[in-house]
Amino acid sequence: MSGMQRQVVLRAYAKGNPRATDFAIEGAPVPEPGEREILLRTIYIALDPLIRFSLDETLISGASRMVPGEVMVGPTVSQVAASNHPDYAVGDYVEGRSGWREYNVVAPDRSDYRGPPRKLDPALAPVSTALGALGGPGQTAYEGVVNVGRLQAGETIVISAAAGAVGSIAGQIAKALGARAVGIAGGADKCRALRDLGFDATVDYKAPDFADQLKAALPEGADVYFENVGGDVTLAVLPLLNRGARMPMCGFIAYYGVGMEGPGPDHLPGFYRMIMNKGLEIKGFAGIFAGQKGLDAIAGWMNEGKVRFPESIVEGLEAAPEAFSSVFSGHEHIGKLLVRVAPETC
Amino acid sequence: MSGMQRQVVLRAYAKGNPRATDFAIEGAPVPEPGEREILLRTIYIALDPLIRFSLDETLISGASRMVPGEVMVGPTVSQVAASNHPDYAVGDYVEGRSGWREYNVVAPDRSDYRGPPRKLDPALAPVSTALGALGGPGQTAYEGVVNVGRLQAGETIVISAAAGAVGSIAGQIAKALGARAVGIAGGADKCRALRDLGFDATVDYKAPDFADQLKAALPEGADVYFENVGGDVTLAVLPLLNRGARMPMCGFIAYYGVGMEGPGPDHLPGFYRMIMNKGLEIKGFAGIFAGQKGLDAIAGWMNEGKVRFPESIVEGLEAAPEAFSSVFSGHEHIGKLLVRVAPETC
Repeated sequence: MSGMQRQVVLRAYAKGNPRATDFAIEGAPVPEPGEREILLRTIYIALDPLIRFSLDETLISGASRMVPGEVMVGPTVSQVAASNHPDYAVGDYVEGRSGWREYNVVAPDRSDYRGPPRKLDPALAPVSTALGALGGPGQTAYEGVVNVGRLQAGETIVISAAAGAVGSIAGQIAKALGARAVGIAGGADKCRALRDLGFDATVDYKAPDFADQLKAALPEGADVYFENVGGDVTLAVLPLLNRGARMPMCGFIAYYGVGMEGPGPDHLPGFYRMIMNKGLEIKGFAGIFAGQKGLDAIAGWMNEGKVRFPESIVEGLEAAPEAFSSVFSGHEHIGKLLVRVAPETC
Repeated sequence: MSGMQRQVVLRAYAKGNPRATDFAIEGAPVPEPGEREILLRTIYIALDPLIRFSLDETLISGASRMVPGEVMVGPTVSQVAASNHPDYAVGDYVEGRSGWREYNVVAPDRSDYRGPPRKLDPALAPVSTALGALGGPGQTAYEGVVNVGRLQAGETIVISAAAGAVGSIAGQIAKALGARAVGIAGGADKCRALRDLGFDATVDYKAPDFADQLKAALPEGADVYFENVGGDVTLAVLPLLNRGARMPMCGFIAYYGVGMEGPGPDHLPGFYRMIMNKGLEIKGFAGIFAGQKGLDAIAGWMNEGKVRFPESIVEGLEAAPEAFSSVFSGHEHIGKLLVRVAPETC
């Protein structure tokens, strides 16, 4: 297993939306696992939009900041390529955070904040779902819809970035709970894909009459707004929220590159007015996960065919920078965006 | 009782902060009570900042809009001057919504959205407290601190507009619960009055080093932000909130005259960032009252001397327009601002 590998490093801090040129691909030695360590071979990398927070020179988020030259961070599914640890055998599949590289050595006993790499059973579900419906995005969707949003049967939920990994699962959870799900996504293809997943209605935010379409899709308003976006989409949604609506917020991709202040006018007064007039309840919950209960519920719905999990896979580590930057510029991918770095079986 | 009375009418919709010249004092006949009606003689008028919402030509709030020429609306304490209703006797004190006038006829059987005028027992508490600690402001403070803010003993609450009717009670409730209370108010006199009421620390938002003072007053951050203000005060508070902080919002006086959009820059991206990074929970609850349970709790604390209720009283109906406009321009009043229209006993 000794030899060279490829890895993607941060070249320069992102300004505004990340560009492919902010990253560089370089060679590095494949590391050797020491005592009680394992060598992981990356199969899938999840291009998580939240990674954007780590790429900012003026860090104003809870993420840890990267330094140019470092290997890109991020969630991965890997296979154990060599093991000096009794709990892991060669060929085991694990979910971890190897980052954007082909190989990585991990010491399971010195676990990072999320614990040792989680072993996956490929007989239960495709291993890629560990980065989606049966991983962070699924738990985030469950937390937002069920625990924070407290969505009830018969209510209406509207979801921004509905074609993303979290949004597409959130809408299906809403349907499984007996609620009405309205998705906001960019482009006719994404909207069609969401209706195929069972969304009751979809609205294309790129359409010139977006606000009117949204109003027509919400004839009785919305009781929960699952917020992933911010910006113009949110300004169109707010007037349509019902009194006492809940607004679980797990992202705001329109503002990731903006910092604390965007160009005027100031929309905070209007936001306040909506919060107070409508008695809105807003809660940020990024990084708060629903836990095993949420995963079990989603796995059950998947077995019943009520939740399907769309993935968009780009091939090869070298495609990662371009694909990641496309996340911020209205890309055409549906569901979780993954990079396949190597085939699933060694 | 027939004859003439004085009343204050809206002359022109308010633009920005209300001015005394937006109102006019005029004469009108004292109305005669019909069958099952009562004639109320106004004693106190509460100059509630929320009345501002009704004065906007482009109504963007849940309030009902007034029309120029109408008598100003608002909560009052009155005494029954004549009664054709068996439940009310001449001399009874009631809390109602007579508006800014000396006399008003009410039909208790055709109750408005808050029900028939609530009878007050002057032996239990001064009748003016029905407009403050034992009325809407007290219930609002209780709802925000206890039910929405879920403030725990040992936690820290920071309160904007702390010298106002709601804020001054909120801080004392926090102290009664065993929490640390930090108040933000304008001017040294208000700050001193709040410390006299038991606030652990106060910060003058008019001080040039306000943000530094606030930071020094919150060495361990804040777990609850009782929001009455918005604007620069809030922008200074947000970075000091702890992870998972709750933000009950019952007003935003800095934005009442602004509408949906203020002058740039746009502070909504920064607000979003704080919500998500800190996992904040924000809830608007204006017009949601804690009910009898809250009033009983406050009455108990008042009897124990743990909650005192400061009032600022201006004399005479003709003083109402100037006093109301001062609410929006950093006035010097502490606690509930009342207009005494007539002495307490006929």
